[in-house]
Amino acid sequence: MVAPAWIACDWGTSALRVWAMSADGQVLDHARSDKGMGTLDKSGFQPALLSLIEPWLTKPTRAVACGMVGARQGWVEAPYTPVPCDPRTVTATAALTTDPRLTVTVLGGIRQDQPADVMRGEETQIAGALTTRPDFDGVLCLPGTHTKWAQISAGEIVSFRTFMSGELFALMSTQSVLRHSLGDGWDAAAFTEAVSDTLSKPEALAARFFALRAESLLHDLAPDAARARLSGLLIGAELAAARPYWLGTDVLIVGSPAASQPYASALAAQGVSAECLDAEAMTLAGLAHAHATLGETA
Amino acid sequence: MVAPAWIACDWGTSALRVWAMSADGQVLDHARSDKGMGTLDKSGFQPALLSLIEPWLTKPTRAVACGMVGARQGWVEAPYTPVPCDPRTVTATAALTTDPRLTVTVLGGIRQDQPADVMRGEETQIAGALTTRPDFDGVLCLPGTHTKWAQISAGEIVSFRTFMSGELFALMSTQSVLRHSLGDGWDAAAFTEAVSDTLSKPEALAARFFALRAESLLHDLAPDAARARLSGLLIGAELAAARPYWLGTDVLIVGSPAASQPYASALAAQGVSAECLDAEAMTLAGLAHAHATLGETA
Repeated sequence: MVAPAWIACDWGTSALRVWAMSADGQVLDHARSDKGMGTLDKSGFQPALLSLIEPWLTKPTRAVACGMVGARQGWVEAPYTPVPCDPRTVTATAALTTDPRLTVTVLGGIRQDQPADVMRGEETQIAGALTTRPDFDGVLCLPGTHTKWAQISAGEIVSFRTFMSGELFALMSTQSVLRHSLGDGWDAAAFTEAVSDTLSKPEALAARFFALRAESLLHDLAPDAARARLSGLLIGAELAAARPYWLGTDVLIVGSPAASQPYASALAAQGVSAECLDAEAMTLAGLAHAHATLGETA
Repeated sequence: MVAPAWIACDWGTSALRVWAMSADGQVLDHARSDKGMGTLDKSGFQPALLSLIEPWLTKPTRAVACGMVGARQGWVEAPYTPVPCDPRTVTATAALTTDPRLTVTVLGGIRQDQPADVMRGEETQIAGALTTRPDFDGVLCLPGTHTKWAQISAGEIVSFRTFMSGELFALMSTQSVLRHSLGDGWDAAAFTEAVSDTLSKPEALAARFFALRAESLLHDLAPDAARARLSGLLIGAELAAARPYWLGTDVLIVGSPAASQPYASALAAQGVSAECLDAEAMTLAGLAHAHATLGETA
């Protein structure tokens, strides 16, 4: 029987992940479902959460949640905090629950007015990274569907930018004409070359996509090379636009190993060394910090 | 009762369009279906065609077809002709038919080895344009799902490049996170500004996509402006890569009015005047030229 001190909850657009946490920060159990925010209406959130954590609710327990669950279309709108701000100073909003065993606290996102940008969920990973590395000053990269680059100074997020490279790769590799030419594997040299080509001639990017299809038809371009090259074109375009973030500085990447590795190798090819932290661990560290900060008040 | 001299057939990936043509080039009737090449296996082509043209087959009749029907996955593979070549000098391949009333001739596409590129269908539109304007020398732009730019000299296609801007716009506007921020309308000023921004700073492109979502969330960016801006970013990136084609020359656009207008206005903003020809008329002119050239031999 698992009886967590509190429940950590990462609730994004497409998935819900929960962890039963002990008072001293150990993971006692975990679960996930595809009941992401994007699939639920207002009345669906509590049942979706209960369906995963019901066995853990032996006493009144608080769940601390980050991510799109706090969007306007989520369970409860948790306001954005404007940059510059310390992501460890959370804005927490209580979600309406009807089960007396359950208290739900939703962490707010972060906004930047100019250039306009928003994050929901990554601020908790950044808080976790800053909890883990309290003295970190520099640039964080959080690869994913919507990759974030964030400038950290004196414990605050000073500025950030979001890139859709992950979502574009998913759409182009599975739904565009390129899907016929792409494999499941990888070709590190093709990836690095595509990153460098795009960084050196970003204006030529748009001509390079269909060329993958044509090279496949005419010159038997290997499917794995085609896949790596598409990824390299998109990450190269991202690095071109994010150059003010990474140029001349070391980078801390917070992501899954699969998402982080291409960024680390793309940066290495530009002479930038990157250290990687695991996204799930940082999410849990950020949620634990929020839980500790909230104390018994929420 | 329609009794065409021949049948014109534009058979792409997602649609089949047919026209009953008189001997003097008039359209007697027309029909279309969604039986595109992408939806059919080898045995499906003849039934798909017959389901549209059966009423017209009062005597043995030839159909002349262009487009993806000639791809390897199509009815019959119609070989590519390498550039440089005159698109009016067609390579025609007979498709296997079992209905004695029906002869089907499939026109081949055009290939370019370096940079690798291919077209199937557009070569017939270009042939139509050159039939209509026999003395044309310069650059053709054929906007669509996969927009083609072609350099024409002395009646030949010298080089061409393909851009996925149309397909990317469709994917991003209907399936990415941006779909929540886009309207159905248009904002000409937002479009032109996005084209110019991308042309002047192509390296910043990747940062501008998610900004549409963020500006919508934070600053109430109008949905029509967001849609026009997304189109402007993609067409701006295309113009940046296609600059060697259009810089300092006039352009002849062959497309539907809806597809051509954004390109014409984007080019006009760069000081390039563009004349527009209707794509359907050029397809029919190209198929008619092929029919006349084939005579009774195919």
